[in-house]
Amino acid sequence: MPHGRNRQICLAHHPTGFPTEDNFALLETAVPEPKEGEMLCRTIYLSLDPYMRGRMNPGPSYAPGVELGHVMGGATVSQVVRSRLPHYDEGDLVLSANGWQEFALSDGEGVRKLDPTIAPISTALGVLGMPGHTAYVGLLDHGRPKAGETVVVSAASGAVGAIVGQLAKLEGCRVVGIAGRQEKCDYVVSELGFDVCVSHHRDDLSEALHAACPDGIDVYFENVGGKVFDAVLPLLNTFARVPVCGRIANYNTTHPPTGPDRVPQLMGLTLVRRITFKGFIIFDHMDRFPTFFEYVSARIHDGTLKYREDLVDGIENTVPAFQGLLRGENFGKLLVRFGDDPTKT
Amino acid sequence: MPHGRNRQICLAHHPTGFPTEDNFALLETAVPEPKEGEMLCRTIYLSLDPYMRGRMNPGPSYAPGVELGHVMGGATVSQVVRSRLPHYDEGDLVLSANGWQEFALSDGEGVRKLDPTIAPISTALGVLGMPGHTAYVGLLDHGRPKAGETVVVSAASGAVGAIVGQLAKLEGCRVVGIAGRQEKCDYVVSELGFDVCVSHHRDDLSEALHAACPDGIDVYFENVGGKVFDAVLPLLNTFARVPVCGRIANYNTTHPPTGPDRVPQLMGLTLVRRITFKGFIIFDHMDRFPTFFEYVSARIHDGTLKYREDLVDGIENTVPAFQGLLRGENFGKLLVRFGDDPTKT
Repeated sequence: MPHGRNRQICLAHHPTGFPTEDNFALLETAVPEPKEGEMLCRTIYLSLDPYMRGRMNPGPSYAPGVELGHVMGGATVSQVVRSRLPHYDEGDLVLSANGWQEFALSDGEGVRKLDPTIAPISTALGVLGMPGHTAYVGLLDHGRPKAGETVVVSAASGAVGAIVGQLAKLEGCRVVGIAGRQEKCDYVVSELGFDVCVSHHRDDLSEALHAACPDGIDVYFENVGGKVFDAVLPLLNTFARVPVCGRIANYNTTHPPTGPDRVPQLMGLTLVRRITFKGFIIFDHMDRFPTFFEYVSARIHDGTLKYREDLVDGIENTVPAFQGLLRGENFGKLLVRFGDDPTKT
Repeated sequence: MPHGRNRQICLAHHPTGFPTEDNFALLETAVPEPKEGEMLCRTIYLSLDPYMRGRMNPGPSYAPGVELGHVMGGATVSQVVRSRLPHYDEGDLVLSANGWQEFALSDGEGVRKLDPTIAPISTALGVLGMPGHTAYVGLLDHGRPKAGETVVVSAASGAVGAIVGQLAKLEGCRVVGIAGRQEKCDYVVSELGFDVCVSHHRDDLSEALHAACPDGIDVYFENVGGKVFDAVLPLLNTFARVPVCGRIANYNTTHPPTGPDRVPQLMGLTLVRRITFKGFIIFDHMDRFPTFFEYVSARIHDGTLKYREDLVDGIENTVPAFQGLLRGENFGKLLVRFGDDPTKT
């Protein structure tokens, strides 16, 4: 058994605003032994995702929060170390939910075996996993883009946004990304094939977005909230659809922004322009996973769809990596590698 | 020709905030003569509706505003006085758009003949017209209520709200109305069959609404905005649907309310509870008119659906009646009778 110890990151305190290192504790425990009906899995890749910020709060978000002193949750690509569970053998590669720790027991619930011949196993946490599935359902089922329409995607170089924009191009739309630093904007256009990408760091964001969307916006895929949302609103066309997937700009705010209160204005716009705002969470749409997987894996395989991963090594770098995610420092799907990927050695 | 004169109410000034008598001018002109391809119609009933407030503003709402010096628009039930148009004869009763005047010419576009044996002709402006159609599409197509769910309707005794609530009862829902004065609340429960009706005049509106909705709110049919919307928001269930039909509480505001800005909070709730806010306007759903008409007229005929009209007499009382509408003083569908209804004499 490697090391004989299990390093775990637990939630020590609920963050107030932006999470700090002090909010977490790195503990070492013994690697547990699987009982009959369990298996022990070794974490290879941990997925870091914006939704995790909500789980650090004391109240429930759309799922219960992590309790103080408990290991932070999260999806992982893992390898079976020892199995006392039918159908799982030592060495199997699986998508599981080990959380922020090097080893975890599992009874097999929610676990899926991975086939490394389809795609690199890390993609089960990104383009072929929850972020890709989110992009597919959010854009196609909720955004319902039509050829020739303008689709705007925030966090355009991120794990979800990059797929949203590429899927919208395949639907025949004009696709405008919004991202942060210039190299992300360049990547979104030159590598992913978006028509334009506007940096949200620009002082003239509203004007630049307006110029990028001469025919207004028919679908806005909302990942960020904040000033990007504000720049999008006046450009929304009649019958616009706004799938609300995330709002990372607001996750760490401790007080609502100062007034005026724009809720009446927003609802007035909703009425006059017949806009649909639709919050969604991918766990409600697991029935669409097979269709998504078939569609996207074929296009990953033939190179139509591209993806990018941002890989950080070592469990001890998890918290700084998560902080960077909240600041938009990652470039592509953020993964932390806790241990060797046997398909790469 | 009765009187030989045509009284008309024109928009004299764009209102700032609440419309005043001074914003309008009552003019007398000659009754016009129809040319070949036209007919002259005499207004019997004018419909007064909240959307008209938007038409008084200088900018376009979802339809162009009324120009200064022009006659205020509006749907009417009229009688053909002289016809030089095929298929229309003197004495025919029609749904038309005479606006706020006693006589108007028409080329027949958008005009529909009325059959007084189906229902009283005034219902073409209410339960069997635009308000009823709005209620039907907004509730059934956008609200999609399921049996056992809780549906909340604001402006519950109004032309739209009263039908929404009754339709929701027919779908097997728990129906909670929100209305103003006590006699309206009593009517909504005892006559229309809502389960509960809460007055928005209560200081403890939020608590009272919470008590009336022990299982939360699955569909909120939004007619009013303002403090009622605020009381509804925290009670919205996961997967709630909010058809946004009107927001009369905000139509006369000249400044947005003071902060904090609750837009981020609203979008956060939208995401976490997977809520759908959908603005709609009935003119986009004319394809649903036949289905609506068949369903509702049958239930008016057999007494399943009830309606109430608030009738004001005389064109000179139109502006005060419209002001009363904006204050919630009318009780039922507000109509102004400009001249004799030949089906009632």
